[in-house]
Amino acid sequence: MEKLPERIVPESSEATLRPISSGAEKWLYRPIKCLNHGFIYLVDYMGNDTSVVEAARVSYGRGTKKVSEDRGLIRYLRRHVHTTPLEMVEFKFHCKMPIFVARQWIRHRTANVNEYSGRYSVMSNEFYLPEPSALAKQSQGNRQGRGESLSPQVQQKVLELLKAEYISQYAVYENLLKFDLARELARIGLSVANYTEWYWKIDVHNLLHFLRLRLDKHAQYEIRVYGEAMARIIKDALPTTFEAFEDYQLHAMNLSRLEIEFIKDHSWPMESVAASCEILKQFKNKRETEEFVEKLKNLNLVK
Amino acid sequence: MEKLPERIVPESSEATLRPISSGAEKWLYRPIKCLNHGFIYLVDYMGNDTSVVEAARVSYGRGTKKVSEDRGLIRYLRRHVHTTPLEMVEFKFHCKMPIFVARQWIRHRTANVNEYSGRYSVMSNEFYLPEPSALAKQSQGNRQGRGESLSPQVQQKVLELLKAEYISQYAVYENLLKFDLARELARIGLSVANYTEWYWKIDVHNLLHFLRLRLDKHAQYEIRVYGEAMARIIKDALPTTFEAFEDYQLHAMNLSRLEIEFIKDHSWPMESVAASCEILKQFKNKRETEEFVEKLKNLNLVK
Amino acid sequence: MEKLPERIVPESSEATLRPISSGAEKWLYRPIKCLNHGFIYLVDYMGNDTSVVEAARVSYGRGTKKVSEDRGLIRYLRRHVHTTPLEMVEFKFHCKMPIFVARQWIRHRTANVNEYSGRYSVMSNEFYLPEPSALAKQSQGNRQGRGESLSPQVQQKVLELLKAEYISQYAVYENLLKFDLARELARIGLSVANYTEWYWKIDVHNLLHFLRLRLDKHAQYEIRVYGEAMARIIKDALPTTFEAFEDYQLHAMNLSRLEIEFIKDHSWPMESVAASCEILKQFKNKRETEEFVEKLKNLNLVK
Amino acid sequence: MEKLPERIVPESSEATLRPISSGAEKWLYRPIKCLNHGFIYLVDYMGNDTSVVEAARVSYGRGTKKVSEDRGLIRYLRRHVHTTPLEMVEFKFHCKMPIFVARQWIRHRTANVNEYSGRYSVMSNEFYLPEPSALAKQSQGNRQGRGESLSPQVQQKVLELLKAEYISQYAVYENLLKFDLARELARIGLSVANYTEWYWKIDVHNLLHFLRLRLDKHAQYEIRVYGEAMARIIKDALPTTFEAFEDYQLHAMNLSRLEIEFIKDHSWPMESVAASCEILKQFKNKRETEEFVEKLKNLNLVK
Repeated sequence: MEKLPERIVPESSEATLRPISSGAEKWLYRPIKCLNHGFIYLVDYMGNDTSVVEAARVSYGRGTKKVSEDRGLIRYLRRHVHTTPLEMVEFKFHCKMPIFVARQWIRHRTANVNEYSGRYSVMSNEFYLPEPSALAKQSQGNRQGRGESLSPQVQQKVLELLKAEYISQYAVYENLLKFDLARELARIGLSVANYTEWYWKIDVHNLLHFLRLRLDKHAQYEIRVYGEAMARIIKDALPTTFEAFEDYQLHAMNLSRLEIEFIKDHSWPMESVAASCEILKQFKNKRETEEFVEKLKNLNLVK
Repeated sequence: MEKLPERIVPESSEATLRPISSGAEKWLYRPIKCLNHGFIYLVDYMGNDTSVVEAARVSYGRGTKKVSEDRGLIRYLRRHVHTTPLEMVEFKFHCKMPIFVARQWIRHRTANVNEYSGRYSVMSNEFYLPEPSALAKQSQGNRQGRGESLSPQVQQKVLELLKAEYISQYAVYENLLKFDLARELARIGLSVANYTEWYWKIDVHNLLHFLRLRLDKHAQYEIRVYGEAMARIIKDALPTTFEAFEDYQLHAMNLSRLEIEFIKDHSWPMESVAASCEILKQFKNKRETEEFVEKLKNLNLVK
Repeated sequence: MEKLPERIVPESSEATLRPISSGAEKWLYRPIKCLNHGFIYLVDYMGNDTSVVEAARVSYGRGTKKVSEDRGLIRYLRRHVHTTPLEMVEFKFHCKMPIFVARQWIRHRTANVNEYSGRYSVMSNEFYLPEPSALAKQSQGNRQGRGESLSPQVQQKVLELLKAEYISQYAVYENLLKFDLARELARIGLSVANYTEWYWKIDVHNLLHFLRLRLDKHAQYEIRVYGEAMARIIKDALPTTFEAFEDYQLHAMNLSRLEIEFIKDHSWPMESVAASCEILKQFKNKRETEEFVEKLKNLNLVK
Repeated sequence: MEKLPERIVPESSEATLRPISSGAEKWLYRPIKCLNHGFIYLVDYMGNDTSVVEAARVSYGRGTKKVSEDRGLIRYLRRHVHTTPLEMVEFKFHCKMPIFVARQWIRHRTANVNEYSGRYSVMSNEFYLPEPSALAKQSQGNRQGRGESLSPQVQQKVLELLKAEYISQYAVYENLLKFDLARELARIGLSVANYTEWYWKIDVHNLLHFLRLRLDKHAQYEIRVYGEAMARIIKDALPTTFEAFEDYQLHAMNLSRLEIEFIKDHSWPMESVAASCEILKQFKNKRETEEFVEKLKNLNLVK
């Protein structure tokens, strides 16, 4: 079994009457390393799988108590996108990440944030330097992603350029501070690879939405790393809820009206080339056709 | 010292590594009675006064640690309306209240809610019947409030009318259910005095905003009762934060630009009638003048 | 072609430099009747289909301008759930509906609302009385919905009970007002069938989310009526966006991980009874099995 | 009278039935220059001062129509912090600003945003270079602000360091793009002084909240510039609402419970040194004392 990271604070438990999640307790104050200088760890939490059930029972009233047991109810809620009971559970993380990751992250507006301030405090000399393997070419098919890897020589060249740039940036920063320039101005030459940190608190409905977008293969790799670290914690903290999330959202497939009609009007399985041609003829959109063929392959309806 | 209400669940504490608020623990599962059939009790919480401080320290960085101690920092945050650290603490309540109270309450959109559903479950035969002393006339000065009390005879008459009406409503409801009419329709003849209940979860910044509006003398009495019950709990759960809230928001006074200029341009104290005349001449608004004279009296600048 | 309702204000147009939606202009101030006393009409709007495209182009930058034309981009955004450009268009409605409908509606928290206040003003003598055809039994399969119709005799009886109850309620209300009881108290005996009204303003992303939930067959019929009225307006105001919404959300189908795997592991088409048995064996959940068989029938994979 | 900036699009007005704000029309598509490469201009708007009044009238009902005229009602709403009618008016801006300004700006979560994406598109070679006069020392009293100016020689040195740093950063960026490194990675060495842009849409309640914080002298100068540009537009677009905002919020003064009691218990005016000593004795907090003395001077109660 996988070993957990060390705790950053000495264990010292106290008694509480509140609901406990043993899976969450296990993760408190244990930083998962993310990228070269970042981390994420659980600072506090509220609720467990049973809290989701109890919130749902308030809505459905006493009448449902006998019928469904807890796991069934949680799965029912996810299947039918009844999300309000999931808002009743909350997690608080301490996260450290490059500014460009923080900029994508903050677009999720339904969270509470306290970020390190470069106006008050001195920024650290820590910058994101990718692993060589993460250095890939601009994707051709996908305008925003990465495609194939760069050659090892070019990867080396890229890293040298970035390293030199970071050293130069931080030297300028230190010089400006020596001139006693206000910190809020001295930091403006530091890059978005510079690390920042924050407390981030969010309810589980919005956290799962965040994970759905940020665990996706179209998300930038560097934020996906943080998504995966959080997913690891939530999986232990809310096992039943997370399993339902995986089954009904994360690994689900959405079929459009056009796709439904296409399946309806044809016999299955179809041969790959024939399917592609036929779909393209109807959809008149190359990218949408490719996406649909991909789905049909996953359903084993196209060979 | 005041006795706490009884807990509705047997005490059975567990160990946690999370921060504890002993004041909040004390209140868990202890319903405070509100109005004739309602209640409010604390179901769960996250964080304590120290959590506010720790969230603020993330923003201000290590540089500030020595300077301010916790109480000073919390008061500083409130004074300067730095509200994000307060969002890091969360409370969850189980509340039962008349529908018309729920309708005012739900206007606070930054909370999480799971409400009892009259589509799934049978509504209870519980209706809000005011105490005789709560039965007052329409206010003259304030278009939305209550003025002087009704006479005891009229109060009695009012209560009889309401009681008879509730009995008739619930009889109709039971009849419709007997006809097997769908519950979502059978309930439409029930009044907004009928009780509903919900789980309500909110962060402390938004909770204090709720309290500021709902503890105000212009809030309808029936929702104020719930605000006061919550305030009682929060005062114990977050003593320093709540004290700062009282000092800098709840019992603060706002002076408008016109009021500032009026004070600046006159000698103090002034005599009441003279002040009123002079202010009215400048403000040209009877209500605003009365509000300002009231403030000046509170400041002892007008006798 | 369908005739539009009459405008409630005389036409008097002015010149603007803002983007225009001719489909939205057509609907301004034209109330669509909903239920017996309700309505919905468009009060104001901001933006059109092109506004969605322009907001997206800010993100994607100049590089994309040539590649995709507007319709393709809007459809791409919906397919990939890039919702922020949809937040750039806004609609404002004036709506009148029974309180129990308003109570479901207000749960959508991302809208702006100004509601008629029973504390300030006298509630009207208007109550929701269903059409006889809307009076159905409690559903057996679905705990919250309606099933088969009641008999005409029972429908008649139900309507008589409701009518009498409304008359009694309003008589009590008028009596309490005559006693000069504060309006905020006098109204507490009025039922949730009483009509209220509000201004409701929302961006299109959240509006489409509202429609997805409220056009669903599981939504209560009475709120669905309002959803359909809004959908009619939006369809004219944003034809391309609404069509994409219909294709990729409203009439889409979601397949869970378990369903994907089941399709993958079997040959299609299957016979209905065999499919049901086999699915139930794997899913171990009767309701989930029924839902899946329903989907397979819609895909013509089960006969 | 001040000349307006030029429009970036040719004037071509269309007819609309919607409410018009002539002050807003005047500003459509006219960029106000902000900092060295930034701007802000109005892209679209919904509503005017009368829209605020109409939304409020829905709440207050017909009963109030005669009593208050529009200006009085708008001022009443602001005085009593009834903010929902202000949510009924909306503005959309196109803004271009340095990334560090965007990072402060985005913390206002109740707005809609579409930002230029460095994953899709190439970042421009534009960086914020302060005016020499903006280059000030770290403030002593205020941990986050600027104090006195740097000497002209040091200012010159600072600008040279920044300029050289920007040239080096952008050269690295161009090199990395030449290697065909994915754009989402190539940009990580660019600093937070690099310009980004976005569409930003917000309702007036939240916009005024933004302005209150960002027009404050404690806000960083560089975001204040954008706040002032927006204030200029809103002042023309909603003259009555903005005037009420200035009178009751922007130029208002908040007195804490302690300050109220101090004023109540003393005779006024007081002499400056005596007041300071006496207050410090009671408040036991140097900074709070200074803040209060400042207020008393503004009220002419301390000489």
